[in-house]
Amino acid sequence: MPQRPDSLKSLSAQLARFAAARDWDQFHNPKNLAMALAGEAGEVLEHFQWLTPEQAANLPPATRAEVALECADVLFFLLRLAAKLDIDLAAAARKKMAINARRYPISKSKGRSTKYNRL
Amino acid sequence: MPQRPDSLKSLSAQLARFAAARDWDQFHNPKNLAMALAGEAGEVLEHFQWLTPEQAANLPPATRAEVALECADVLFFLLRLAAKLDIDLAAAARKKMAINARRYPISKSKGRSTKYNRL
Amino acid sequence: MPQRPDSLKSLSAQLARFAAARDWDQFHNPKNLAMALAGEAGEVLEHFQWLTPEQAANLPPATRAEVALECADVLFFLLRLAAKLDIDLAAAARKKMAINARRYPISKSKGRSTKYNRL
Amino acid sequence: MPQRPDSLKSLSAQLARFAAARDWDQFHNPKNLAMALAGEAGEVLEHFQWLTPEQAANLPPATRAEVALECADVLFFLLRLAAKLDIDLAAAARKKMAINARRYPISKSKGRSTKYNRL
Repeated sequence: MPQRPDSLKSLSAQLARFAAARDWDQFHNPKNLAMALAGEAGEVLEHFQWLTPEQAANLPPATRAEVALECADVLFFLLRLAAKLDIDLAAAARKKMAINARRYPISKSKGRSTKYNRL
Repeated sequence: MPQRPDSLKSLSAQLARFAAARDWDQFHNPKNLAMALAGEAGEVLEHFQWLTPEQAANLPPATRAEVALECADVLFFLLRLAAKLDIDLAAAARKKMAINARRYPISKSKGRSTKYNRL
Repeated sequence: MPQRPDSLKSLSAQLARFAAARDWDQFHNPKNLAMALAGEAGEVLEHFQWLTPEQAANLPPATRAEVALECADVLFFLLRLAAKLDIDLAAAARKKMAINARRYPISKSKGRSTKYNRL
Repeated sequence: MPQRPDSLKSLSAQLARFAAARDWDQFHNPKNLAMALAGEAGEVLEHFQWLTPEQAANLPPATRAEVALECADVLFFLLRLAAKLDIDLAAAARKKMAINARRYPISKSKGRSTKYNRL
């Protein structure tokens, strides 16, 4: 069965080919990729820093398109980091969802943003 | 055809249900989610900050498992942010890959980490 | 004339002694310190991510005290980074203030959060 | 006695005047400033992400000058955030130094980058 084009595995494979073709694996070690990930998350952040929550929820189309591309960058470095650490990101996501379900039972967390260790 | 469990769409739908059940959409506006994304990327970063590149590429299993869960958190907030901005993350990823292919032709970028605007 | 206790130079000297006594200069290279700086900024961020702007401006005293200590951490790593790069942070601050004054003339930037390159 | 030009208080007062003259206090609420702080720390980070630790410790002069100005930006938003939260940053720094001295006794932390809660 072919992989869906939006599967994490398929995207990760494309990114690996892109980097290999440019001999970039020498730069893509986990320490550097963790930095690049945080740097890109910072670029996403900068789009929102002076906006009110209302403005942030109603971006002009051009800004929204820029944010979409920054989000793609975050995804790329996240997938590269996971690949280089031999982390199965989909499995980690399932595991973390199960942890969150235990940490945030509906009865205790409904309507509250409190962190689990203070619930 | 059923969605693969690791598709971005499937993960995003699960996260939406998780948040809705806890009445968390009131907190999950784009500005807040951009902050949470950067905060989680910062947590990934902190695992690596005092390690040499060699140590970072050879994490002890327990640390690697912690980093995997932090990576899942980054993915979660990225997917939530994209959802709330009505961004199709897979489409954005395809678009950004095409941009990167133009920005970083193999002939100019092979073996170099230089940013495209200085190539 | 003695240095004021809140001068950047005086703080930086104290931090250098603290690190030297613990043989931490081996960890405090610029790359690592840039990571630690961003990690601490991420911790500051996490205190605010689920708060409305109004709540963020009216922190409970305990939270405000925590944020104050996180801000100190940001300052520490900033000063360490500057020291290790042989950057005179006070001089850089003066230089950047002059640049900002040119980039953001009152006539063009009054009441607007627009970045200088789009003004 | 006049304030030293590099005192935190003196810098903070200059920044307050700069913002007030531009009617920017409406944007400079703590939530926004925490975001701007993290965004600027991310910009510092991006200068170092593809460099080896050795390269990062030996920046070309032009890069070092850019990093110095980014460090100034971090300092500016940190001071603005502290001001808006009515945090005495110098006092917080003294308090945090005392905490660190207790958390990291030389006998236990010499030559080790281990976090205090795992020492």
